[in-house]
Amino acid sequence: MTRVLLRFYLSPDRPIGPGKIKILESIRDGGSISEAARGMGMSYRSAWLLVDSMNSQFKQPVVNTTTGGSGGGSASLTEFGASVIRRYRAMERAARRAISKDLAALERDLKRTPRRLPRSAGL
Amino acid sequence: MTRVLLRFYLSPDRPIGPGKIKILESIRDGGSISEAARGMGMSYRSAWLLVDSMNSQFKQPVVNTTTGGSGGGSASLTEFGASVIRRYRAMERAARRAISKDLAALERDLKRTPRRLPRSAGL
Repeated sequence: MTRVLLRFYLSPDRPIGPGKIKILESIRDGGSISEAARGMGMSYRSAWLLVDSMNSQFKQPVVNTTTGGSGGGSASLTEFGASVIRRYRAMERAARRAISKDLAALERDLKRTPRRLPRSAGL
Repeated sequence: MTRVLLRFYLSPDRPIGPGKIKILESIRDGGSISEAARGMGMSYRSAWLLVDSMNSQFKQPVVNTTTGGSGGGSASLTEFGASVIRRYRAMERAARRAISKDLAALERDLKRTPRRLPRSAGL
């Protein structure tokens, strides 16, 4: 099953891609940056930096946060943040439709069961 | 200027994305894996592994290599490898066209001059 990931660099050093969107979705669903971080296997600090980066790159925030104790406070998606998620996921679907024929052709060129070598072999 | 990167996972652990395609283009232009590696700032071993991964994931090779001395031998793109590059770049263009309106809308939501904080601030 082919997954297509879309990543775009809106400003040279501030990419928006699947990681940032996934964090927004986790915050939407769980209401907490620390829970989102755990769910994605990243540190609280890394998740916080991604959220802070998004909050500062757009004209309006994507996430509202309240500072808290050891739990890291709570976080909630703004309406603008929700619209960023919707737009990004729609873009992914549009991109996938646009490349579906070429993708199917590439898949036909793949071996059925790819050869798997140990990382140390053949070097 | 927004760059759009496309990355797809043809098999679960064998992504094809901009790195692999760039290597193929460098080999097409320079005829050598080691030169391609240098141009991309990666080790010869990393570049070799990417080429080997592609050669083994498709039914036919994308690169023909001749073993050599300390220089690492020579490498040339196959006709199939050239077609993979063409197809991938066409897919990028198609994806970009498909998302161009949404991308422009996202760009309008960006701050003109993004706030830049030192990495240590505010944590």
